[in-house]
Amino acid sequence: MSDYHFPRQDAQFVLDHVVEFSRVCENLGQDELNSGLIDAILNEAARLGSEILAPLNQIGNQSGAVITDAGVQETAGFKEAYQQFVDSGWPSLAGDPELGGQGLPRTLSTAVMEIWQSANMAFSLCPLLTQGAVEALTEHASPQLKKTYLEKMISGEWTATMNLTESDAGTDLAAIKSRAIPEESHYRIFGQKIFITWGDHQMTDNIVHLVLARLPDAPIGVKGISLFIVPKFLVNSEGLLGERNDVSAVSLEHKMGIHGSPTCVMSYGDNGGAIGYLVGEPHTGLACMFTMMNDARQGVGLQGLAISERAYQQALSYAKDRIQGTQRDGSRIAIIKHPDVRRMLMLMKSGTEAMRVLTYVAAAESDRLKAAEGDQIAHHQARLNLYTPIVKGWMTELAQELTSLGVQVHGGMGFIEETGAAQHYCDARILPIYEGTTGIQGLDLVGRKILTDKGAALISLLDEMAVDLNRLRVSNELQVALKSAQDAEQQVRDGVNWLLNHADEASAVGVNLMMSLGYLCGGWLMLKSAAKALDLSLKPNADQTFLTAKQVSARFYCEHFLPRVAMHLHAMTAGSAAIMALDEEQF
Amino acid sequence: MSDYHFPRQDAQFVLDHVVEFSRVCENLGQDELNSGLIDAILNEAARLGSEILAPLNQIGNQSGAVITDAGVQETAGFKEAYQQFVDSGWPSLAGDPELGGQGLPRTLSTAVMEIWQSANMAFSLCPLLTQGAVEALTEHASPQLKKTYLEKMISGEWTATMNLTESDAGTDLAAIKSRAIPEESHYRIFGQKIFITWGDHQMTDNIVHLVLARLPDAPIGVKGISLFIVPKFLVNSEGLLGERNDVSAVSLEHKMGIHGSPTCVMSYGDNGGAIGYLVGEPHTGLACMFTMMNDARQGVGLQGLAISERAYQQALSYAKDRIQGTQRDGSRIAIIKHPDVRRMLMLMKSGTEAMRVLTYVAAAESDRLKAAEGDQIAHHQARLNLYTPIVKGWMTELAQELTSLGVQVHGGMGFIEETGAAQHYCDARILPIYEGTTGIQGLDLVGRKILTDKGAALISLLDEMAVDLNRLRVSNELQVALKSAQDAEQQVRDGVNWLLNHADEASAVGVNLMMSLGYLCGGWLMLKSAAKALDLSLKPNADQTFLTAKQVSARFYCEHFLPRVAMHLHAMTAGSAAIMALDEEQF
Repeated sequence: MSDYHFPRQDAQFVLDHVVEFSRVCENLGQDELNSGLIDAILNEAARLGSEILAPLNQIGNQSGAVITDAGVQETAGFKEAYQQFVDSGWPSLAGDPELGGQGLPRTLSTAVMEIWQSANMAFSLCPLLTQGAVEALTEHASPQLKKTYLEKMISGEWTATMNLTESDAGTDLAAIKSRAIPEESHYRIFGQKIFITWGDHQMTDNIVHLVLARLPDAPIGVKGISLFIVPKFLVNSEGLLGERNDVSAVSLEHKMGIHGSPTCVMSYGDNGGAIGYLVGEPHTGLACMFTMMNDARQGVGLQGLAISERAYQQALSYAKDRIQGTQRDGSRIAIIKHPDVRRMLMLMKSGTEAMRVLTYVAAAESDRLKAAEGDQIAHHQARLNLYTPIVKGWMTELAQELTSLGVQVHGGMGFIEETGAAQHYCDARILPIYEGTTGIQGLDLVGRKILTDKGAALISLLDEMAVDLNRLRVSNELQVALKSAQDAEQQVRDGVNWLLNHADEASAVGVNLMMSLGYLCGGWLMLKSAAKALDLSLKPNADQTFLTAKQVSARFYCEHFLPRVAMHLHAMTAGSAAIMALDEEQF
Repeated sequence: MSDYHFPRQDAQFVLDHVVEFSRVCENLGQDELNSGLIDAILNEAARLGSEILAPLNQIGNQSGAVITDAGVQETAGFKEAYQQFVDSGWPSLAGDPELGGQGLPRTLSTAVMEIWQSANMAFSLCPLLTQGAVEALTEHASPQLKKTYLEKMISGEWTATMNLTESDAGTDLAAIKSRAIPEESHYRIFGQKIFITWGDHQMTDNIVHLVLARLPDAPIGVKGISLFIVPKFLVNSEGLLGERNDVSAVSLEHKMGIHGSPTCVMSYGDNGGAIGYLVGEPHTGLACMFTMMNDARQGVGLQGLAISERAYQQALSYAKDRIQGTQRDGSRIAIIKHPDVRRMLMLMKSGTEAMRVLTYVAAAESDRLKAAEGDQIAHHQARLNLYTPIVKGWMTELAQELTSLGVQVHGGMGFIEETGAAQHYCDARILPIYEGTTGIQGLDLVGRKILTDKGAALISLLDEMAVDLNRLRVSNELQVALKSAQDAEQQVRDGVNWLLNHADEASAVGVNLMMSLGYLCGGWLMLKSAAKALDLSLKPNADQTFLTAKQVSARFYCEHFLPRVAMHLHAMTAGSAAIMALDEEQF
């Protein structure tokens, strides 16, 4: 497996020139975040990622977590790496300052999170899920619970898990059977949860499980689910660790990837009931879960970016080294000189860059929401809500293709485990599944994000794109690309109208609309980047190497990815008739 | 992992009504192949596939081949299965009757091969590669070599391997370094070959290695490569096995899939030189290799069909069983009722059917070539040559998507090894790589199959499609689909003209043209099937369940896959500028 280095220049370009991060900071009243400080943060994170986390990535794949009588034992070296991670203060980067966090903008913590996820996705799932749990408790937990649990989760001293799924309740949370019985000042939790990522490990003294369960008087369905904190070790009133709670990992799944990340079956209440504490009001677990989930969905989308970047670096390194083929003068050449290999590398490069700019733009929307006032609150909330299924759905699907190209660039060596390309490909396969499948993202997009407001939030985004595309100044070479993006924007607009007139077919077509929107967002933002790059290239001492590449990448994106907008819309506007026509026995 | 059953009705439909197999037999003078005999062959093969080979598929994945001091030990149970396979006469199905083969048409042996590859791809790679070697020896070997080796390969008593790749010579065979030194009536072979599928095992008494190597006076490059037979055990003049030859498997690769198929590093001549026998004339190894390779490429394309079918059956079985979600009346439903799951299943079903009809049509072209006379020989040869990169390239790429959908239908369970879906996905990943990568198929298509005859063979295929599409009678529901196929045919025709005018960009755009052609061929043949199904449905006692499904499947294919024709052509006609623009340091 090749080394990992953070694509600092591209990230910085997006922060400075597309997201306009200095304005984000200004709006948040965080003017103290000058470029020197940002530099220091990114450089230090990049160093930890490259030097500590990345070298453990392949080791985690080869020597994954195992379960013993003493619980789950993570890969050797992970504990020390985690300790360094915590000691350097990384978990608390975006946390609430009143609870010990550093309160940095989400945009910046997202750039830093890209580093962790590229360097070692299996390892970094642990802080990613802890962050989702932090969001949920910040929004819904009582001050007492926050004091006892949240501070240590923000600091990273303890990690957290999300316990939703049961064997009969995956996407369908209404089917949850785990029970919570009231008892004095707490509850007794009983039930079995599956697919619990980092459900147990030895990296920290305690683990905070957030568990969905039903109270005895719960209504049926999703309106009867409540959220509980169930710590691995009980915590006394002074915050000291006490007895082991009645919860344990009873087995690990054998997965096709992310072997360094233990996926546990967790059992609650085998010996009298696990002690748990209610978060928020009874029966409001679904809302708490969505806070956690929406955060995690952005995070999983980011993993799609991060693993694609890693796969790209791996493929690029191989393509520059691997000698194969002879030129007319008899000299042998590296495969990067072959046009089809270059086509694959350009797909990986431009696709990854498009994901990066969308990820950061969506993260900046969180910060803009935080700083917003009046009408602007609803606007930014709607925009953020709209981005979430696109970031999660489109990016994790695109990551499948890009990591597969990473294998393909390697030829036969791509299929061999030691090379490393196969690991990225297998690791990536979980992304369109966990935290809501692609199908669920499609439903979320058309159902909750488009039909409920009659397309208003989406039309507002399309309007912004149209204005942008209309005023962008790009080079002559990119005029056709710009025109194709304008056409694609109009096609999506027509597609939205089609959807509004065919609301009853929404559930059959959501994924195609989501994919077309993802490709369109990518084109819009790549062209914005290209226009900015052209502008910057006219200044003295500009880095022409980078700025030219940025424009070529945008052009390539529009030529190779944008035609997919029409392709997905064709499939969408064909409607649901052929999808639904067969009886089950005709399959 | 779910059971496997051969989709007999679909295969029979294609044979009877699209390929018109009875006419194929007539042309070959094999009128004795009546429907009773065909039935018996397919039923018996389906039984062996389902009952013997398929149950070993997951076992092979979990307990792959290992290497010991005594050589490579295949998965337990494979040897007995292979013996049954040979005892029932399956390897000799399409073999030359003069050498003990049964001489059945290629079309029929292809349908049978689909069964083996669906049931257990890792196992069935062994007979697949043996068949390629049989083709090469049939065409190029001396009568003496044929008598000694070919008969036992046709019967399956011995298996064969293809030894092309060396660590510095993968796609670039010009770089081959293995040497052959003349000595009395044979040669001494020295060198190391990698990625040798089924390079060693204990299933048969002998293994016949076909090895590319250079003679001492060989010209440099591909014109200096010769092909040799190197048996694992020497064979004396009475055909009896003698000493062990100086060849052995020295290690096995750790791969991401097809664990049941040992991928060996083979060492020749560590102890004085392996005895080998020249096949054909000196320095004509490349031609022999292409005979073997072209056969294998059709076979690997078929594996794309076969594993997609298996993944579809697995996903369908899960989708019918897995209860998730509640209807308005409170009853819980299987996930096959959810529109997006159904969309995924329809992609798998219609994509697999399109691959099947193209595979059988291409196989029938072999039989038509064999029966051809006069002008028709060149016509059928050109058509077969044209189909080969499409069958190999497009089908193996589509298999990536369809096996991935197989995982996705399973949700979280898809990522768990025991389920079986992940195995199909990981096994499938080798298909666009071995026997010539997708990039090589693209080059082969545009270089050897289009530019050399100025597009004549392809235009002849497009003309046939245009005539067909123009006269097909389909139901009202399929009129839009039919029109879209006619449009797609015209788009490809325009694309070919673009290519002929941009020959210098061919190497950058071949894959996109190949993919667009694959989708178009699928659409054409699915609509032919639908028209035939409509026609048959008007007859008394017609199986309306099947015939309606066939038409729905064709409609769905045109709605969801055909828009990709324009998408790939857009990428193609953008040309190579953006692909080639960057300097290496700009990546």
